Formats: sequence, structure tokens, C-alpha cells
Amino acid sequence: MTITEAETSVFDTLESQVRSYCRGWPRVFEYAHGCRLQDEDGHVYLDFFAGAGALNYGHNPPVLKRALLDYLERDGVTHGLDMSTTAKRAFLETFRDLVLRPRGLDHKVMFPGPTGTNAVEAALKLARKVKRRETVVSFTNAFHGMSLGALAVTGNAFKRAGAGVPLVHGVPMPFDNYLDGRVEDFLWFERLLEDRGSGLSRPAAVIVETVQGEGGVNVARAEWLRALAGLCRRWDMLLIVDDIQMGCGRTGGFFSFEEAGIVPDVITLSKSISGYGLPMALTLFRPGLDVWEPGEHNGTFRGNNPAFVTATAALDAYWADSGTEKQTLARGEQVEAALDEIAREHRRSGAGYRGRGLAWGLTFADAGRAARVCARAFELGLLVETSGPGNEVVKLLPPLTAAPDELEEGLRTLARAVDETA
Amino acid sequence: MTITEAETSVFDTLESQVRSYCRGWPRVFEYAHGCRLQDEDGHVYLDFFAGAGALNYGHNPPVLKRALLDYLERDGVTHGLDMSTTAKRAFLETFRDLVLRPRGLDHKVMFPGPTGTNAVEAALKLARKVKRRETVVSFTNAFHGMSLGALAVTGNAFKRAGAGVPLVHGVPMPFDNYLDGRVEDFLWFERLLEDRGSGLSRPAAVIVETVQGEGGVNVARAEWLRALAGLCRRWDMLLIVDDIQMGCGRTGGFFSFEEAGIVPDVITLSKSISGYGLPMALTLFRPGLDVWEPGEHNGTFRGNNPAFVTATAALDAYWADSGTEKQTLARGEQVEAALDEIAREHRRSGAGYRGRGLAWGLTFADAGRAARVCARAFELGLLVETSGPGNEVVKLLPPLTAAPDELEEGLRTLARAVDETA
Amino acid sequence: MTITEAETSVFDTLESQVRSYCRGWPRVFEYAHGCRLQDEDGHVYLDFFAGAGALNYGHNPPVLKRALLDYLERDGVTHGLDMSTTAKRAFLETFRDLVLRPRGLDHKVMFPGPTGTNAVEAALKLARKVKRRETVVSFTNAFHGMSLGALAVTGNAFKRAGAGVPLVHGVPMPFDNYLDGRVEDFLWFERLLEDRGSGLSRPAAVIVETVQGEGGVNVARAEWLRALAGLCRRWDMLLIVDDIQMGCGRTGGFFSFEEAGIVPDVITLSKSISGYGLPMALTLFRPGLDVWEPGEHNGTFRGNNPAFVTATAALDAYWADSGTEKQTLARGEQVEAALDEIAREHRRSGAGYRGRGLAWGLTFADAGRAARVCARAFELGLLVETSGPGNEVVKLLPPLTAAPDELEEGLRTLARAVDETA
Amino acid sequence: MTITEAETSVFDTLESQVRSYCRGWPRVFEYAHGCRLQDEDGHVYLDFFAGAGALNYGHNPPVLKRALLDYLERDGVTHGLDMSTTAKRAFLETFRDLVLRPRGLDHKVMFPGPTGTNAVEAALKLARKVKRRETVVSFTNAFHGMSLGALAVTGNAFKRAGAGVPLVHGVPMPFDNYLDGRVEDFLWFERLLEDRGSGLSRPAAVIVETVQGEGGVNVARAEWLRALAGLCRRWDMLLIVDDIQMGCGRTGGFFSFEEAGIVPDVITLSKSISGYGLPMALTLFRPGLDVWEPGEHNGTFRGNNPAFVTATAALDAYWADSGTEKQTLARGEQVEAALDEIAREHRRSGAGYRGRGLAWGLTFADAGRAARVCARAFELGLLVETSGPGNEVVKLLPPLTAAPDELEEGLRTLARAVDETA
Repeated sequence: MTITEAETSVFDTLESQVRSYCRGWPRVFEYAHGCRLQDEDGHVYLDFFAGAGALNYGHNPPVLKRALLDYLERDGVTHGLDMSTTAKRAFLETFRDLVLRPRGLDHKVMFPGPTGTNAVEAALKLARKVKRRETVVSFTNAFHGMSLGALAVTGNAFKRAGAGVPLVHGVPMPFDNYLDGRVEDFLWFERLLEDRGSGLSRPAAVIVETVQGEGGVNVARAEWLRALAGLCRRWDMLLIVDDIQMGCGRTGGFFSFEEAGIVPDVITLSKSISGYGLPMALTLFRPGLDVWEPGEHNGTFRGNNPAFVTATAALDAYWADSGTEKQTLARGEQVEAALDEIAREHRRSGAGYRGRGLAWGLTFADAGRAARVCARAFELGLLVETSGPGNEVVKLLPPLTAAPDELEEGLRTLARAVDETA
Repeated sequence: MTITEAETSVFDTLESQVRSYCRGWPRVFEYAHGCRLQDEDGHVYLDFFAGAGALNYGHNPPVLKRALLDYLERDGVTHGLDMSTTAKRAFLETFRDLVLRPRGLDHKVMFPGPTGTNAVEAALKLARKVKRRETVVSFTNAFHGMSLGALAVTGNAFKRAGAGVPLVHGVPMPFDNYLDGRVEDFLWFERLLEDRGSGLSRPAAVIVETVQGEGGVNVARAEWLRALAGLCRRWDMLLIVDDIQMGCGRTGGFFSFEEAGIVPDVITLSKSISGYGLPMALTLFRPGLDVWEPGEHNGTFRGNNPAFVTATAALDAYWADSGTEKQTLARGEQVEAALDEIAREHRRSGAGYRGRGLAWGLTFADAGRAARVCARAFELGLLVETSGPGNEVVKLLPPLTAAPDELEEGLRTLARAVDETA
Repeated sequence: MTITEAETSVFDTLESQVRSYCRGWPRVFEYAHGCRLQDEDGHVYLDFFAGAGALNYGHNPPVLKRALLDYLERDGVTHGLDMSTTAKRAFLETFRDLVLRPRGLDHKVMFPGPTGTNAVEAALKLARKVKRRETVVSFTNAFHGMSLGALAVTGNAFKRAGAGVPLVHGVPMPFDNYLDGRVEDFLWFERLLEDRGSGLSRPAAVIVETVQGEGGVNVARAEWLRALAGLCRRWDMLLIVDDIQMGCGRTGGFFSFEEAGIVPDVITLSKSISGYGLPMALTLFRPGLDVWEPGEHNGTFRGNNPAFVTATAALDAYWADSGTEKQTLARGEQVEAALDEIAREHRRSGAGYRGRGLAWGLTFADAGRAARVCARAFELGLLVETSGPGNEVVKLLPPLTAAPDELEEGLRTLARAVDETA
Repeated sequence: MTITEAETSVFDTLESQVRSYCRGWPRVFEYAHGCRLQDEDGHVYLDFFAGAGALNYGHNPPVLKRALLDYLERDGVTHGLDMSTTAKRAFLETFRDLVLRPRGLDHKVMFPGPTGTNAVEAALKLARKVKRRETVVSFTNAFHGMSLGALAVTGNAFKRAGAGVPLVHGVPMPFDNYLDGRVEDFLWFERLLEDRGSGLSRPAAVIVETVQGEGGVNVARAEWLRALAGLCRRWDMLLIVDDIQMGCGRTGGFFSFEEAGIVPDVITLSKSISGYGLPMALTLFRPGLDVWEPGEHNGTFRGNNPAFVTATAALDAYWADSGTEKQTLARGEQVEAALDEIAREHRRSGAGYRGRGLAWGLTFADAGRAARVCARAFELGLLVETSGPGNEVVKLLPPLTAAPDELEEGLRTLARAVDETA
């Protein structure tokens, strides 16, 4: 270990203090495959964080890797701005045929720049442009990104403080079950809308995550989402589902909102859309909302063609049929059963769990416990991270492609970490 | 051509109206190498736009390609969040040894997310956090990005209108020579600063491009930049140089501000930093400004390790000595001579030119001429684009690696396009 | 009547469309005394609107009139900027001796300019300056004024739209009983405060009316106000009570919050503080909050000395003992009894009533009914106006000095107007 | 003096630190008449500050006093909200007949609340509502008021800091001669407007004072004002002249812009409009701009009828013919001659002067000198104050009604104060 620490020095001396994950996992990683990361000293870690949801198919999945290497080797266009390329066409056709059409969606596809926050910025800009209103409603503990527009609809006070300017035009409403079921859903929100004296400027849109990952793995019920969709329709607000972390199959279906049977006006996708961890993002919207002028929103890396190649390969490999969805739900049950057992054994620590598909959170009454569990898990070879406003939740985002025995191994390690931090 | 048009249909039917470059260059591109792009019908185009400055070393440069393929083949970490990896370490060490140290810079390196606008957002957030002031001064015809914070310091009215909310906290000042030399440099800016009754809220920072690419290839003189740096120092404002388009050797030196002998407090880099057109961005700042809390700014794709690999290879290949800088300046003279000839021949059309290194603009009195020149050039097999607030400038950003005869070929095509649009 | 209409023409031709009360009461008024207004044709009206609360002691009360005439006749200073004058001193001493000290208040007195909105602007500026935070929480259906700062904490959408810019830094919370008792008081507000991920920027202050006059005569319970005061204390937010309409005895005690036993950090007064309908306003705050620099907030008419003279006379005449308070409560019972009878008789119209002291509202299920009642009352010689976000409430603000038989007369007219609009 | 100081104690103990003029003139004033103020100890002061321009006809002018006393004695309506009253009608008719019509103005009259900042807020709201744009251009060293909207177009950094929130939507441009004639008028402003890439959001309006009183008695030339009016017309921006301090005859004509021959779209008046120092304000605008909805902007003290009475009397007494204008210009020459002599005698102190009509400023190279002059003048029985961003200008605003010998007396005192502070 001493050797590694010596070798990390350039990170300490040159990289900004803003770095974070490297502090909890103080190793220098070198190789990655499937569910595993290997550091330069040969230690192997089971990765149940999966790039914060960017690696739903694990690290370097072979089929995608092959497609990527082939494309690079034959000098396919790498950087394509927003030019038409064969790689982009293949992606668009495949996305249309395997994702949009089977789900009855006729949304237009925008390449807003290759990160989630770009996709959110584009969604917010478009909603405001269409509705000619400034206000956007977000939810308690929402996370939508770090650029100024996205940050203004993000809940976390620590992140918000980084803006250096007051964050305006965003209004938070209570997420599902935020007030412990003591208040009827949308009672407050709808009352504000119907009362011309409420002080709420009429919103252009509502932006929501179906499961709040960064916010603590808070799961919205399908009926809550349906009621929200109805509210948006009745009050002429666009419904934006930010599916950056929970889309691409994380909760079972390709989109996390499918289970609720709703059709958002605007959808943001990023993280796992390229399937290989390459930067890529999409903003989807109903055709009638496509009021952009050519080039009104742009960006240098909108056309990251290697990502289009792996994205196409990922759709072909995992979304040509319902296999991935079924498998994810089955694996989710495996995780749930294990968490249920941990929670029962640690009932005195106020342990609980929540989640959907393969996004799970393990909660404790003691706020510091989650961090200790993650730290111990790391020592035991498992990568998991905390989330929630007080970092009080251990968040599990294993690759959807994890085999049952890999899940089993990780969950056993987690149980041990919980035991040993009691 | 009919075939191609039929095949582009998915772009028309599915992709958002926001797409732009594909409209001026209506082909489906497939392969790329060096200065050339090839469409799926086998037509080859000389690319003097180079990914809007993201491809300074041309398309798919072989040395970088080899490094990238090797890394991917051996399952190096692809997606690394902000974990320490061997690829990141190699990049940091190389960047330190070949870029920072030789130039006497001790700046810290932040990975703010892999796009230019992320780098700018991080720079603005940091400046405001450090100085506890909101206002940031930018310049007429500045371009800094499309997310809300960056857009507020961008000049273009068309882009600004896309925000859907009033853009605040940014104040424009005249760029060098904006008022045709009729006003002493910084007369207005300094008067506003020194007058406690001027109405200018004290700025946290000034953000500037040394050459405004999108704004029309407007070149700031070295003495203007030095005066600006002095002004920032005297008035306790941070100087942010946005070197996203003009850095990485575009004007000769690695950083575009080297020629002026100034040291910015904050520097943004993106576009050509990965060298291969892969998304990557950096925000650099003086060590004393590194007041970030861990994770206060984050992003999923901060750790695009394939980009670190090609970035390292690019530094090794092009910046181990002063060869690239010298070659760029020589090539620049070649371009300048050609433009001078064009301008002299089209004096009656009010033709003029300006630029530095290998960033050049060809201007006309008639605003529509530039667009016609670009359209004709495309028909003749040359990719160039317009820039400037009225799209009145033909912008040339050939790869720095273009051979003299490739430059010659492109410049001849350009001259012909100018002739044929007279 | 024809004559009058002809003579109003300058109002139609020259005065802006923004005029409002003159539309509901289309007469040209000439004389006023006590509860009565007389138009130029000799018609006399009973005034139960009392200058929207600015005439708590009726029109031109003789004792105040005498003091005012004396002062003007002997050439006392009329316009005093914020210079020390004998009239100002007399007011300050009397206000201290009759208002502040007997109530155990040690608040500092600021003359912020002679209108309510000035007083609110000063309160908001001070709160933000003290706490170095921007956000101020207001309540649904709040009314605090028409200048930009006050408007941003006002609920009415119609008024807000007049701003022409997005109104920011204000966040609405539910006023007492806003959600019909279905939600625990402050459940939502406190949850937002305690959750670091809620998205609520920490407020500098809370601004509240104990009874919302413009908002529809919504009465906050004493225990709700006490809970609010506790919340402010616990979360380090200043409590601003806007007592512009409900202060100066309107609800019984001099300050409307006395009944609840709370001590606001900041208090705004205007309307009836001069007692004679002359423009005057005060912003009061705890001594520790007096962080203003000399002249940091100013205004030409801060020193409206004739108003100081009548204000002093009013305090001497009405607030030297508890007589006014007791009388107001007694008169309030008289009004309440009459409204109760009206409501019982018009139960089928969904009639209801609410109020405190001598501020009362008569409500109907049918939103248009209130306007019809006011119109008919005017024809019958009674001035009353609607309030509430949909103008659905008939608002009664009779002079506190109305004699029982005057009240009786007005209430009988009101009852008749209700009957005749059924 | 000791006695007085003891007696000022309630000001020290109870009044907020924000008080200002009373600090420079530490007496308790009791009586006022014409150009004179008398303190409670019988000392008489010559007042060349005249309520910061609110007392153009001096203190308590007898004709107005008589009209006011009559009105009050016969129980005319005192507080009239925005009801039609005979007093309001008389004012409107007189204002139309003596002010608007003779000057060819057909502006509508709005009563926005009785203070200058209310009038400015109303003007800004209307301009933004009409043009559907947020930005308003103001000028360096402008002063328009202390409420949030007006403060955002005010230059003084000290006042601005009091807002406690960032001031947005205002953009400062250089006032006439701001850059010492080294820059062509409006070069920068017009360039920003015509360049779609300048970063200036298209303004709804420009707000300007023809002579900046608070800003240091900066006088705009007539040709500069005309050029500004032309610029506004060409670029579809409303021209708002804030004539609160310089209107009502201060510079000669009733409106200060008459000399330049321009017709503003919007005009604000306050200060001396009531003629007696009573709070009153007007916002005037071209009929086509009267897009207000009834009650969209309101305020309790819009109908300060005693002020209407004195305002009418003032118009009758001073503006029935051109006598006041001629007299003011003559008196102005008297002041100018005296200042010229002072300046010549103190050339070595860098003394200078500027002004128009009866608004004058005496400037010194040494910033502290003006304050010392004012302090010494006060000891010698003359009230004058400093203005300008660094309080570097002695500002003279004697009553327009000052007799030649009164002016002579004051100017002699001033000269002595200058001498004795050398």
C-alpha cells in the first residue's frame, strides 16, 4: 500500500481539491471488466456503483468493445459535430426501432452535448421557450446537474452554494412520500396552481426523477407519477422526466417511467446510453415541442461518434427483446431479499431499504453509519457509495449484467460490512 | 446524390430541428483521416473546420489511435468518475511536465466534466465563490457556451434568446478594437471601476478569449491582453482566459496567451485537449484559488479515460519540443499570404482578413457573401464555415498538422469559391 | 347624475387606465368627515372602506385636524427630509411612551419614506443585509406592495404580472388554514428547512400579515403566529410582521400581533399611523438589527412633518389608555353578530364570514356575488370593496371610531345589498 | 448648544442609524418660511438645499398655505385612494391647461403613489410591460430611488449594496461628458445595439436625468439629449426622463427637457410637484403606452388630496405665465457669476462649477473639501449639502423664489466657507 500512496502524489499535488470519489477509494485503478475493477497493485474490487449508473452493462462489455475497436480501427468519423454520419444514422435508426417505436413514442431526438447536465439545460431552455414562462418546478432532493440552469432545480444545499449566485426560477415541491404520507399527494402544488393569489409564478414545466438516486434512492410510486402527469396536463406544464440515472434499464424497462404508463413531454438520457461509459446524452421531446431554430443550442461534442457506435451495439445486444428487463427485475428481487435480511438483522440500528429494479438504498437511523459501511465495504473489496442529503443511504447500483453469484458475493460483503460497523 | 438524400431521412424525421452543420454539409460522412472526411458515397472533403477547433491534430491521428486501441484492447478503465487511474496519472504527469512546468505555471487541474461549457461553468462558479461577488465581465462577441452560466457571458443575441430566462450577472465590455481604435483601450471599463457611482457592480472576474473564434476571428493584440491583465490585478478581479478554441496550439504556443506574456488566474481548455476529438475538458487555476470542497462541483464523465490516453499521447507527440509551435506559425504565414492575395484581388468586394497562428477569418463587406463562399467551397470539396454575429466571416481552422500542399489545395479551392461568388 | 358624469371627463381623458376605485364608485367626492364622504352633488356615503385601512379614526378627525391646522398656521416645518424637528421629536417620544414602552418593545424607529411599500422595501433590505441571504419567505395571498422588492413577496398573480421582470428571491408558504386544516401547521416549511437537500435556499426572513386584508381577510390564529415565531427563532430567520393594514388598532390592540404574544424582529407600519390619511410609514426593528449605514436607504418624503403632528395627536387621543382597544373589540362583536345573521340567512348561497377586531370579510360560494353586493351597496350609499384572489370577499374596514348606530346603519345596508343580489 | 444636544437624545436613542441629514445639521428645527429654517433655539438658517429639490417655491409659501388651510378647514377629502375628487379634478385640469397643453404634450397622468421611487417603479414596470423586455439602460451616476426596481438603475455603489440581492436588468451607459469628451457620444451604446453579438439584451427603455443632482450636478447638453432621444426612437426603446429633482422649474422651464426640445415617452415627477413639500408623484406617458389594467399598480396614498390642492395652487401661482422660468434663468446667472468668482479665486484648489437654471455644483480637486465647505457653511448659517459619488461636489438648490439679496447672502456665506476651509 505504501507504494501506491507514494504513486498517488500527482493527484494530491496537481489535481484540484474538488476531487471526491478518489478520496473514499484511495487506489489507482488500471483495468476494468464486467463487475470488476483492478488497481495497479493487482487488487480486484467488485463494483456496485457502476459509474454512478453510467455502466449498466458493466465495464468494457465485450460486444460493445468489439464494435468500438472495429470502428476506430477502420477510421470511422470520431468527432462529428452535429454532422450526419453513418454511425449517427445507425444509432438513430436503432433507437427508433428498438426503443421509441415499441413503446409508442414519437419523440424527436436532440444531441445536446454529451453530459447529463447539458441534456437538462437543453430541456429547461426548450420548455421555457415553448411556454414563454421562467419557473420550473422540481422536487425535494432532486439532482439534475452542476451547470447553472440544472443546479437551480437541484436540491442539495451544498451543491447549490457552489453557484456563487442566487439560484432562481426553480421552485421545489414535495417528492412522493416526502411528508411521510401525512399529506395528500399534490395538495399543496395544486392549491398553489389554482389560487391566483398563491404567489407561485405559473411554471413552464415540472422536472422529476422517478427514483431519486443522488437524493437517497427515493422511489416515486407509479400512481404518484400518474397523478403528476395528470397535473401537468391539466395545468399546461411540460413534464420532464430526467431519466439520466434511472433510464437505460436501471429500474427494469428501458425508461423508468414505463411502469407508470406515463408519457413525458421531455425526457433526458445520458450515463448508460452509450453503454460503454463514453460521454453521450440525449434530450427527447414530443414533435410539437421541436421549436428550436437551427443551432440555437449547440456544443462541440454533440457528435461523439464512438459513443454512437457503442450505444447502437448496446441497444442491439440488450434491448432487442425483453430479456434485459426481465433479468433486471429478477436480479432486483435477489437484491431486495438480501437487503431485507440485513435490515431485519439490524432492526435495532433502524436499518431499512428501498429501491426498484437494480437501484437500491440501505438506510440507517444513524447518519454516519452509511459512510462507515461504505468504508468497510471498500476494505473488503466492494465499491458502494452513500447518497441522500446527509449521505445517510448506502446506494447500490450494480451492473444490470451482474451474474447471480456476483450479486451474491457483493451482498454478502455488504452484510459483513454492516455487521462490522454495528 | 439522390440515394444519399433518401438515406438521410432519419435525420429529417427523427433528429431535432436544432441540428445545424449537417444542413450546410448535407452528406452522410463515414470515414475520416488527417485533413480529410469521406462520405458514404465515397466523396472526399478537405476539412478546414477541424471540429470547430477540436481536431487540431487532424482526424484520427495514427499515434493517438494506436494508444487508444491499445488501451481499449487491454481493458483499461474506460469510465472512471473522478477516481484515480493510471491513465489519469499519466495525463496529469505529462501535462505537468510538458505544458505547465515549461511555462512556469503552477496551476491546479480540475476535471469539470468533458465539455467546454462545463469548464466555463466551473470557472465562473469558482471565481464567484472566491470573490463573493456575482458580476463577471465578458466581451462583445464572446462565446463561452450554451449552459445557463456560460450563456450569460456569451454575446450572440440569437443564442442568448434560447435561454428562456433573462441572462443576468454578466456585463459586456468592448473587445480589442471594437470601436475601431476611436477609443482608448479600457477607458470605459476602468472609469466604471474607479467611479463608485458608475452603476457597475464590482466584478468577480473577467472572462476573455484571446482570439474570438465564434465571434468572427477577432484577434486581441498582445498589449491589449497585457493591459487587461494589469486591470484585473489592480481591481482585484480574476482573469479567466477561455482557451477552449484557441488553446492546444491553435495560435502557435500551447496556450494562446503565451505570446502576450500574461498568466491568467483561471484557464479553460477543452476541444483539442484529448487530441482525438474525444470529450474532455480542464479548468486550471492558481493554487490559491483552489477553495473547492470535495465534490462541490461534479459530473459523471469527468473521468473519460480514453480521452486521457489520447491526450497524453498528443502531448508526447506534439508538445515535447517547440516543433509544433514553429510549424504552426510557418503554416500560418502560408495561410496569411494566400488570404492576402484573395483580399487584394477582391478589394472591391471589401474583402479583408485577420487571424493568428492557424485561426483565420476572411471578411467581406456584403454580409451574405461569406455564406455563399462556404456553400460553394463545399461543392468544391472544402469544409469551411462562417462565424461572426452576422455570419459575415469565413473562418479557417485547418488542422495544425496539415501539410503545406494540403493547405495549398484548400486555399486554392477557397480562392476559387470566392471568385465564383463574386 | 348626468352632470356628474360630464364633469368626470378629465378623469376619463387624462388619467391613466390604471385608476381603479373610481370605477366602482363613479362619483366626484368633495367633503369627508368621520364615517361619511360627500360627493359634489351632495350625496352622502357611509364609508366602510376607510382608505383601505388608512383612516382608522375616520375622515378628518377634529382633534387631529386642530393640531394640523395649528402646526401649518404657525409655519412649522412641513418638509424636513430626515432632519431633526420638534414635530418629529414629539412623535418619537409619544410613540415610545404610548406604544413601544407599554408593550415592552425596544425597537428602533426608521422613517423609510411615507408609503407602505417603502417600509416593506426597507424591511427586506435590512433583513437581507443582516443575514447575508437573499431568500424571503412570504405566504399565499400575501400583499406587501407594488415596488419591485415588495411585489416579489406579494401573491396576487395579476399584480405580479405588472412587474415585467421575473420576480425572484421570494418563496410562498401556506398561510394559516390554507389547506383547510388537512395539513399540520408548518409541516412543509420546517421539513424544507431541516432537509439540506430540499432545494429551499436558507431564508433571511419571513414576512407575514396577521390578517391578510387584500388577500381576502384571512385570519391567522394566535397559536399559528406563535408557532411561526418559534420557527423563525429556531432557524435563524427574521420575523417581519407587515402591520400596515392591520396595525394601528384595526384588530384591537395597537399592533395586531399583540394578541398572539409574539415580538417580531421587524415591523412595518403605515396607512393609519398618521391618523389623518397623510402619507407616513415606519419600519421598526430590534436594536441589534440596526446595521444601516447613515443614508444607506433614503427618500425625499421621510420627514412629512404634518403627518408627524397628526400621528402624535392620534396617539395622544386614542392610545393613552386601553379605551380604543376595548371599544374596537366591542364594535367587532357588533359586526360579527350582524354578519352571522346575514350568513345564516344566506346559507344557501354559501355565505360565510371571518375577521378580527374591525376587519371583516363576508364570503360567498359564487365568486361574482361579492362584486354585485358591493355595487348594490354603493347604490344604497355604502362604500365597501371586494378582496381576495378572485375578488370573492366583501371586505369591511369601518373606522374604529364609528358609533354603534353608524355601524348598525352600514350593516343594515349591507344586509339589504346581500338580499337584493340573491 | 449643549441644551440642544441634550434634547436631541430621542433621535440618538430611538431613531435608526440610517438617519443622515440630521448628522450634518445637528439642530432641532421648528419653523420654516421661504428660504429660512429656524431651530428651536431661535437660530435661523438660510436653506439652499430646499428639501433636496422638493421646495422649489420655498418653505410654506403663503398662497399655497392659504389654499391648504382652507381645504383642510372645510373638511375637503384628505385621503382619497384613487377616487375621483374635486381636488384631483382641479389639479388634473390645471396641470393639463398650464403644463401639458402649452407644451404640446398629450401624456396621460398616473398617480403611482406619492414618492419619487414609486413614480420610477411605475415607469419601469410600464416600459417593460409595453416592450416585453427586461433590460433598462441607465447612466453612470444616475439616482432614481431606493426601492428595488429603482435601485437597480441607480449608480451609487453604497446605495446599491443596501439591496442585499444582486441588482439585475439594469445596464449603465456613460452620461454626457463622462469620458471627458474623449469618446464620441453614444458610440459605445449604439455599437452595442447594432451588433447582434454584443451581449446587450435589447433594452425596453432608457432612463435619464437631464441634470444629475445626486450624481454630482452633471449637466447633459441639449444636443446630447436630442441624440439620445433619436437613439431611442431608432432602436425602439422608450425614453424615460426622470424629472423628479430637475422638473417643476428647477432648470428654468417646467420640465427640464424642454430646453432640448425633446418629448420623452415617459416622465416622472415628484418632489416639488405639490409645491408645499407634501408627498406627491406623477408618472406621465404617451397615450399609446397606457396599457395598464385597472389596479395593476396601486398604492394607499395615491390620492393625497391636500397635495393636489397645493399643487394646483402652485401651478396657478407660478406657471400661469413664463415669469417663473425667466426669473429662474436670471437668478441662475446671478449664482453662476458668484460661483465663477469663487472658482477663479480658488483656482489653485482646482475649484470649478457647473449647473443649469438654479441647480449648481461647486467642485474641488480635493474630495474632502466639499464636506468641509458644507460643515463650515452650516456654522455660518447656510444649509448646503454635498453630492457626487465621492461627495466631492457642493450642491446648491436654492428656492426658485429666493430674492436676489437672499441669493447674494447665501453666496457670500458660501464664499466665506470656501475661503475658510482653504
